Amino acid sequence: MEHFDGGIPRTVKIVEVGPRDGLQNEKALVPTNVKIALIERLANAGLATIEATAFVSPKWVPQMADNADVLQGIVRKPDVRYAALTPNMKGYEAARDGGADEVAIFAAASEAFSQKNINCSIAESLARFEPVLAAAHADGVPVRGYVSCVVGCPYDGDVPTEKVASVASALIEMGCYEVSLGDTIGVGTPVKVQRMLQQVARRVPMGKLAGHFHDTYGMAIANIHASLQLGMATFDSSVAGLGGCPYAQGASGNVATEDVIYLLDALGVETGVDMAPLLAASQFISSYLGRPAASKVARALQSSTRG
Amino acid sequence: MEHFDGGIPRTVKIVEVGPRDGLQNEKALVPTNVKIALIERLANAGLATIEATAFVSPKWVPQMADNADVLQGIVRKPDVRYAALTPNMKGYEAARDGGADEVAIFAAASEAFSQKNINCSIAESLARFEPVLAAAHADGVPVRGYVSCVVGCPYDGDVPTEKVASVASALIEMGCYEVSLGDTIGVGTPVKVQRMLQQVARRVPMGKLAGHFHDTYGMAIANIHASLQLGMATFDSSVAGLGGCPYAQGASGNVATEDVIYLLDALGVETGVDMAPLLAASQFISSYLGRPAASKVARALQSSTRG
Repeated sequence: MEHFDGGIPRTVKIVEVGPRDGLQNEKALVPTNVKIALIERLANAGLATIEATAFVSPKWVPQMADNADVLQGIVRKPDVRYAALTPNMKGYEAARDGGADEVAIFAAASEAFSQKNINCSIAESLARFEPVLAAAHADGVPVRGYVSCVVGCPYDGDVPTEKVASVASALIEMGCYEVSLGDTIGVGTPVKVQRMLQQVARRVPMGKLAGHFHDTYGMAIANIHASLQLGMATFDSSVAGLGGCPYAQGASGNVATEDVIYLLDALGVETGVDMAPLLAASQFISSYLGRPAASKVARALQSSTRG
Repeated sequence: MEHFDGGIPRTVKIVEVGPRDGLQNEKALVPTNVKIALIERLANAGLATIEATAFVSPKWVPQMADNADVLQGIVRKPDVRYAALTPNMKGYEAARDGGADEVAIFAAASEAFSQKNINCSIAESLARFEPVLAAAHADGVPVRGYVSCVVGCPYDGDVPTEKVASVASALIEMGCYEVSLGDTIGVGTPVKVQRMLQQVARRVPMGKLAGHFHDTYGMAIANIHASLQLGMATFDSSVAGLGGCPYAQGASGNVATEDVIYLLDALGVETGVDMAPLLAASQFISSYLGRPAASKVARALQSSTRG
């Protein structure tokens, strides 16, 4: 175990979002059994929170139409939480009935993004989630909140950090146990991210915040390190760097789980995730999709394994 | 200008190594006029130190056989230093006569790498450079030193930081004005790099040290940020991420200049380098080589320019 300055958490929770946030952006439908096999491989690698699917309209996101089949098909590990994204009551009820251990709701820190992405204002989106949170509370289902565009918006450009703080704070007050702050278009850099986090942490304790970074400009690992230095201890990532945001330009999206684990292993931070089976999961889905993993760690370690 | 913690330098010097360290690894010979056009584009982007070529045996590095023609063909900008790598007296004299403003010598922190890369021990390599430094001193030519394998060796694995410090210190004592610490195989991570730098800085002032990071595992930008936090103010980088080490596994080598400038711009650090003409230089050489730049920033910004 290595600790440089004492300020970096000793243990970090990784929320694996590849099967949902990653695969939902694939144009060709990925078969249900491939999704199930991927999720099982991720769980076997030690990922204890896996966003498995979304209960959204199949008209909008056809890739997630098999949501209930995915959840029901997984051979579950007892300590793993299988989560589902749920935009509304209908989605929530289907997710609960389908066996989701946890659900996630999503808001934006930018009005323009909220309008274009979910077709309502930020305030309207929060109001829409109130019955979901009430029902989940009654059912004992934990709810995670997402805030997108926390350091920049594809339509509005800069996003005020006070807005990020107020939306994050509202989600916690409504009953989310954690809020994931998403750099949806990958424009975050270490100083911007630290300033944003410091502002948000005045309203929401760092222990209830997660970082969701995109590697569009190659800054995600530096941003995660900068966030660790402020005590952040939960990060979202996507095996093989699957997915990204359809609104963001360029080739790269979600930071790859392999790269995050490589960093955390080197920092001596415990994650419970083992690199070898994680690489195997990455190789599995990359082979299926017919393209190399969007992860320098995966490419370097796989080429070294090949000799 | 943004400064987060006051510990990050306000100004950083970038040493562009693409035309030498990058192109020397290209199998197909790059025409002299393409090299010249690249160097001129890099100078026009504001890069004030450019390693233009190497005066090494054309048997060993055929790509650099046109060294004198490259140096003589450049339309020079007065404030730019055009540097050349020189392994021995013969190379030094040819570089000086060819008009190199600065020369560079290279040693390793690992005995095994020294033997395999330059066929002699570390001590022998330092002894070999003594006459070069004496001649350069007499001629008024500045000499830069490289130390490779500063956080790991492809043959020996871990490299003791005391060894890095002693080789760096020896190069400074011999008369190098600066020593560039190279993570030749890209295995550095923020804590390892900071520990190594702290050890070396006990022997050599940080102002005489430069960081030369490879992005093999996607950690280079995080390592540069970690080095900035310790006050390091000079970094080597390669336009379009050209090159890398033939001994390192995986696809990625030198960190891309575009990615480094993107980080430094965001941190409010002055470099004198303008992103738009830098991207044009990146696009120029990437088009010639027929492959996309190994730079997420270049890919993201070029795709956004294309609309």
